[in-house]
Amino acid sequence: MRMSRHFPKTLRSVSEDLTQAHALMLRAGLIRQVSPGIYTLLPLGWRVHQKVKRIIFEEMEKREVHNLEFPILQPKEIWQKTGRWEKYLKTKTMFTTKELFSQQDFGLAPTAEEVATTLAMAEIQSWRDLPQHFHQIGPKFRDEIRPRLGLLRAREFSMSDAYSFDADEEGMRRSFQMYREIYQSIFQRVGLNRFISVQADSGAIGGSGSAEFMALSEEVGEDFLLTCEACDYGANVEKADSVYRKPRYGPARERSRKVHTPGIRTVEELKNFFKGEKIQPHHMVKTVLLSVIPSENREAYEVAVCIRGDLDVNLTKVRNLLKADEVFPAEGEVVERLTGAEVGFAGPLGLEGRVERILFDLSTKGMTNFLCGCNETDYHQLDVNFGVDLPLPKEWYNLHIAQRGHRCPECRKGKLIERRGIEVGHVFMLQTSYSAPLSATYTDANGQEQLLWMGCYGIGTTRLMQAIVDQNRDEDGIVWPWSVAPYQVMVVVANSSDAQQAQLGEEIYRHLRGLGLEVMLDDRDYCSAGEKFKDADLLGFPFRVTVGRYAKEGLAELKERKTGRRGRSEKLSVEGIGERLLEHWKGGDPAAAR
Amino acid sequence: MRMSRHFPKTLRSVSEDLTQAHALMLRAGLIRQVSPGIYTLLPLGWRVHQKVKRIIFEEMEKREVHNLEFPILQPKEIWQKTGRWEKYLKTKTMFTTKELFSQQDFGLAPTAEEVATTLAMAEIQSWRDLPQHFHQIGPKFRDEIRPRLGLLRAREFSMSDAYSFDADEEGMRRSFQMYREIYQSIFQRVGLNRFISVQADSGAIGGSGSAEFMALSEEVGEDFLLTCEACDYGANVEKADSVYRKPRYGPARERSRKVHTPGIRTVEELKNFFKGEKIQPHHMVKTVLLSVIPSENREAYEVAVCIRGDLDVNLTKVRNLLKADEVFPAEGEVVERLTGAEVGFAGPLGLEGRVERILFDLSTKGMTNFLCGCNETDYHQLDVNFGVDLPLPKEWYNLHIAQRGHRCPECRKGKLIERRGIEVGHVFMLQTSYSAPLSATYTDANGQEQLLWMGCYGIGTTRLMQAIVDQNRDEDGIVWPWSVAPYQVMVVVANSSDAQQAQLGEEIYRHLRGLGLEVMLDDRDYCSAGEKFKDADLLGFPFRVTVGRYAKEGLAELKERKTGRRGRSEKLSVEGIGERLLEHWKGGDPAAAR
Repeated sequence: MRMSRHFPKTLRSVSEDLTQAHALMLRAGLIRQVSPGIYTLLPLGWRVHQKVKRIIFEEMEKREVHNLEFPILQPKEIWQKTGRWEKYLKTKTMFTTKELFSQQDFGLAPTAEEVATTLAMAEIQSWRDLPQHFHQIGPKFRDEIRPRLGLLRAREFSMSDAYSFDADEEGMRRSFQMYREIYQSIFQRVGLNRFISVQADSGAIGGSGSAEFMALSEEVGEDFLLTCEACDYGANVEKADSVYRKPRYGPARERSRKVHTPGIRTVEELKNFFKGEKIQPHHMVKTVLLSVIPSENREAYEVAVCIRGDLDVNLTKVRNLLKADEVFPAEGEVVERLTGAEVGFAGPLGLEGRVERILFDLSTKGMTNFLCGCNETDYHQLDVNFGVDLPLPKEWYNLHIAQRGHRCPECRKGKLIERRGIEVGHVFMLQTSYSAPLSATYTDANGQEQLLWMGCYGIGTTRLMQAIVDQNRDEDGIVWPWSVAPYQVMVVVANSSDAQQAQLGEEIYRHLRGLGLEVMLDDRDYCSAGEKFKDADLLGFPFRVTVGRYAKEGLAELKERKTGRRGRSEKLSVEGIGERLLEHWKGGDPAAAR
Repeated sequence: MRMSRHFPKTLRSVSEDLTQAHALMLRAGLIRQVSPGIYTLLPLGWRVHQKVKRIIFEEMEKREVHNLEFPILQPKEIWQKTGRWEKYLKTKTMFTTKELFSQQDFGLAPTAEEVATTLAMAEIQSWRDLPQHFHQIGPKFRDEIRPRLGLLRAREFSMSDAYSFDADEEGMRRSFQMYREIYQSIFQRVGLNRFISVQADSGAIGGSGSAEFMALSEEVGEDFLLTCEACDYGANVEKADSVYRKPRYGPARERSRKVHTPGIRTVEELKNFFKGEKIQPHHMVKTVLLSVIPSENREAYEVAVCIRGDLDVNLTKVRNLLKADEVFPAEGEVVERLTGAEVGFAGPLGLEGRVERILFDLSTKGMTNFLCGCNETDYHQLDVNFGVDLPLPKEWYNLHIAQRGHRCPECRKGKLIERRGIEVGHVFMLQTSYSAPLSATYTDANGQEQLLWMGCYGIGTTRLMQAIVDQNRDEDGIVWPWSVAPYQVMVVVANSSDAQQAQLGEEIYRHLRGLGLEVMLDDRDYCSAGEKFKDADLLGFPFRVTVGRYAKEGLAELKERKTGRRGRSEKLSVEGIGERLLEHWKGGDPAAAR
């Protein structure tokens, strides 16, 4: 392609509140927004996406995963069988449409478990047919409340989604492991140089366990991760567990007493207020009121969670415990109605019966003489004890948020470190949670009918592009990895009105394309050399050939983009440039070759 | 891939009322229906589709058309500007969805003129940026009232759609011609061996002219075409014009008379009834009442069309004349209410004022002493004359359906022949019909703002697959052209429990894949040789290698699928097979090479 014919022009500047990667994708002309969260992939973005997709298809084929394509319009009936139709509508996750002649309802694929399982149900008969793997890459739709960060939180995006079907749990675990390996290869090949896999919550997909692949990113990372400094434990903060310090609490004193604490509501305020008594946050029990949207067909309700003052409540853990669709902090007026006090004075004392359940976090087990709210404005209760002031809870639950500095829950030695990442992949063990409602069975070697054991696996391919840009850039623009670069070489003719330069540029362009390289020729006669260099850096193809003052000797300068401003160039003939590039292409890191 | 791992199994039989191509696509396991008009592309179908798409992308790139990707969710606002939102909703053509947080409406892309034009509007500034071409391949949606014929009439399908932007009409015509050439190359490369391009109606897309590319098919063709036996004129029957015989009519006799014609309604019945008087159909004027759904925001209304008895009314011509959204024959009760007579007795006499307009076809011009209805049950009027019994029409319109046997409207010599075809491509000159409402302009060399001149171009890529199958099959199955074959070679191990055969099969499989060929190995130990040969013929990869009784000599048999049952095979060594296939691949018709 020639820059004079290329579309669109680069942009010198974009809105300043964008992240670097998002801004670069706009400036280099990879994407344009059509509506919030809805984008057009422009020619360069399209080329990168094609390469990302090809790499994924190849890695899938290597492991005998069947590439295929499910439809976007998915019939309501099969989504009702798994209960996801109601769930996704209630949480406003899914776009839907209606067929006007038959009035049939369809969901616009957010994922394709139902369609994949239905296909397996119809076509898989025997244990001989197992394991079976389906994979597709195609548009997906999720109704994000607040689309943002370019391709990271989009309403329409492209996803690679795979589905595995096995005879039993062991097979499912083998498949799960296989996809973890496939994903490792894919992320390496597309040029992610910093990614980790972490344990994650399964969310609305369901099943028994899942892992996320995270491209680390201090700037853009929308997910918080905790990893162990000593072992290889890592988890999304929603899922993470941790070991925290448990102080030794003294024996229970005899009587609790109510203390006047005017306007003192938070743990921090209480700590200051009781400075004299040296009451620390771990001597306090915090009570958090939560509203719950249940997954069964019933009204929303409220629960209270009591947790040690220096810890916070993990809403995902509460949601999973209650098997709810959604859990969120109760509104102020709800808190006041239930506790009869202003916000900031809720406590377990006398709350029984006013909320559906009171859940005690494990951190409160063994606490004595603690401070807590007593559901009376401007008052707290001191020296409260289980079995005295309130009944000893029958059960304790693990509901705290793991924090950096806590100990690792696996090795129990290393401290947890906080990192930020972009979720680029997510793998799930689904067990039989889809095959059971959809009656997807096979006949085993003994002639018995058995449910299929499933897994599902997703990579956001458009968000992956943005993660790649995030990890491959410098102050001047993008630095594409060879494997997914829209073009591999930019040939810049410094002065297009110089006939010798123009001619040599054409010659190099023709020669390199003849070698099978993807080349852009900057032949624009209305741009200065400086502007062309700026664009070359911004677009970030792996190599730049500059045709300038040495053109009369038949030489041009070859420079690698990733060496940046201080990078050195090499003066070479047309053939010399071709040889050097082929060496790089064929001889280099196999992961970098096309 | 190995047949033992391949998915899904072939089917021996499918429903008998399917067309051959549709049945083959199901039996060979290319597609499965998820819901009427909604399909999953299974692994073999997916592979063919990938190849078809790659060929199209390549042909587009050769002509510097930019490949990119527009979103599927298209904002209502831009569709309202061109008037297509209301039009497509009124005709129930478009699927729509609502974003639940903002309540914004979206259409599911049936095409992408609005989004493409909006992009051009934002990014094209000057005459220097022109011409500009955008192309994508992606899912499209149309709410078919009666999905049928497999991938031919689907609700969700894949389409290659391109959009051209030029400075003026001449540029638009040049682009239009360029896409005609691109389409020729594409259809040749994918293996359509019988296709023609014909003039077509532009329908809801609008614009000034269009052409359809038709894959000829006597069995499946859903479109009727008329082509000239003498010149290269061809048109869809909706669009076709023709020259028909005009008899010499005698001078007007003085008085018309009402004749009692009890129960005589049709032209054929009238001809028999008036056998004695030798009144032929071309002595009759037929009156057809039509209901019209206007494109403006007003109520539906009725018109009458008067046409010579031996001709029929072309509803598309009427729709275009009235600039209506839809035109269809009026219901019986509407006819009776308007004419005051039973159906079969409508006529121009006294109809004035009862319908919105009476349109006279050109065929009635110059007729004298004709027979027509008089809006009275069981009566017709004979010897009717313009200027006597009814006023001479101020205008005459070309509203007849061209028929086979009519003369060609271009060379005026050849007779028209009727053929049937599958529409695989459609190219349109849009002029400024989208750029005007969307204000898509550029600045010309004189600094003046000008509207962009557009064209749009579509290939149904999934229906194209079915057209390819339709034209490449025999009594045993599909006969894939090399260029789009899912695999190029099927290696059949006749007896998989024979160790020598199994080993040679593996060796050939490895060797051919090493050469870059796409190979399927039929290693199934639970199938007879006969079953394997049947499947090989059904799946129809271009070459079959049979490993059987010559295995002990290290030889296998190579046979070309297209030679059919009588085809001869060649005994060759492993290397010999590789050489012969490479010869075919590299040396053959360049259009057949990958």
